[in-house]
Amino acid sequence: MKWLRYSTRGEIFTGYLEGDLLHAVKGTPWGEWKSTGVQHELGAVKLEVPVIPPTFYAAGLNYVKHIMEVAHAKGETPVVPGAADIGYRAVNALIADQEEVIIPADAGEKIHYEAELVVVIGKKVKNISEQDALSCIFGYTIGNDVSERDWQKEDRTFFRSKNSDTFKPMGPWIDTDFNLHGAQTRVSVNGVLTIEFDTEAMLFSIATFISRTSRYATLYPGDVMWMGTDGTSPNIKGGDTVEIEITGLGKLKNRFIKAHV
Amino acid sequence: MKWLRYSTRGEIFTGYLEGDLLHAVKGTPWGEWKSTGVQHELGAVKLEVPVIPPTFYAAGLNYVKHIMEVAHAKGETPVVPGAADIGYRAVNALIADQEEVIIPADAGEKIHYEAELVVVIGKKVKNISEQDALSCIFGYTIGNDVSERDWQKEDRTFFRSKNSDTFKPMGPWIDTDFNLHGAQTRVSVNGVLTIEFDTEAMLFSIATFISRTSRYATLYPGDVMWMGTDGTSPNIKGGDTVEIEITGLGKLKNRFIKAHV
Repeated sequence: MKWLRYSTRGEIFTGYLEGDLLHAVKGTPWGEWKSTGVQHELGAVKLEVPVIPPTFYAAGLNYVKHIMEVAHAKGETPVVPGAADIGYRAVNALIADQEEVIIPADAGEKIHYEAELVVVIGKKVKNISEQDALSCIFGYTIGNDVSERDWQKEDRTFFRSKNSDTFKPMGPWIDTDFNLHGAQTRVSVNGVLTIEFDTEAMLFSIATFISRTSRYATLYPGDVMWMGTDGTSPNIKGGDTVEIEITGLGKLKNRFIKAHV
Repeated sequence: MKWLRYSTRGEIFTGYLEGDLLHAVKGTPWGEWKSTGVQHELGAVKLEVPVIPPTFYAAGLNYVKHIMEVAHAKGETPVVPGAADIGYRAVNALIADQEEVIIPADAGEKIHYEAELVVVIGKKVKNISEQDALSCIFGYTIGNDVSERDWQKEDRTFFRSKNSDTFKPMGPWIDTDFNLHGAQTRVSVNGVLTIEFDTEAMLFSIATFISRTSRYATLYPGDVMWMGTDGTSPNIKGGDTVEIEITGLGKLKNRFIKAHV
């Protein structure tokens, strides 16, 4: 089942997709909901961010090739994390599928995509075992952890390198039936494939991250956990379009625009 | 004016305080609201976290003495930040005045308080100048940025050192009339004063943090910005009570409990 948030004529709806038809519901997908009887055509609405998370978790370094290449680019010795220590991103930066990423006027040239699988939590859990961890997942979506590498290297925090407005495209929908096994993450820039990797080839698994995080922090319905990326990105310029596909899940497509003031 | 969130008989209310009487309202304090006519006595209700922020900002290192003492404790050379780079905390960790901080069973002995002034944003702003920055503030409250120092030093992120459940007491209320100039922050442990500092003696001012953050990130009503702390803390043990007073603003009091499983 695919769940979307979308807007039309100034109203925001939550609904599920059947074919090309969106069925609007009242309530929350991971809780109580019922159909309203209202339907919209997918092609006639604007997609919104599929969920506004109470807490926005991000795994950071979680694929080995990415860790090696990032360290190399910084002139540092690669350090593979010893534990599944989760980080954070900020909701101000979220945008939906098809919305534009605005590159700030004072940003440098190293604007990079990071193609990520996103886990959406569906149940309140604390101290859940690795064995049971996947049971708290409602579904999956796709994220682009857009990063400005000079700021990431220079600043004390990720506040502008990763959390500038529009730097966190997420969507297009939440799929409750996605099967991670065998899935491929593919990124293309202006229609040309730039990287492809096994989505599942993570350093620490989703179950490990959920279990370890929940040992200390209660996870709530609607929380999202971005699972990290592999490889590196070419420099993305104003006018470029980045499309991330995770096979069996969907495509997240966003055009980049350079601000001049 | 003092705004509170509170609960009684299983219902949560928002209201303002006059004397010892809470006047419940409908709406949001920083937006449209009207009185419901319902009143409660302050002493008869349970306080709740005064606001659940969409984004939870934290200044981190923002008082010189704290920076020096933290570096000394880590055996590192102190580095005073060169810019007002904001960081983040997570809402799962928030608790209200009078609620208990639970020290995780596997935490070390270095459990520290950090007494902080908290700014509550009242208007949506982007790219606001330092000169105008204070105009987006709705009011002020008090925060305790409880930290487990071994985890803070060892882990790749602050996920458990600073964001374990209950590690972020905030309250008791949001005061729209607080005057920072001349205010003192005082902390006592079990009734004994352990530190006192000028609340205003920040490395980077509130206006500087708001202006710089808003250059990249839109600030939204209800966002909070914790402004950092001075000095260091003794080790806090299960059974200890920490009270933070900011003169002219209020007191935030929380007992610590050690978990054993």
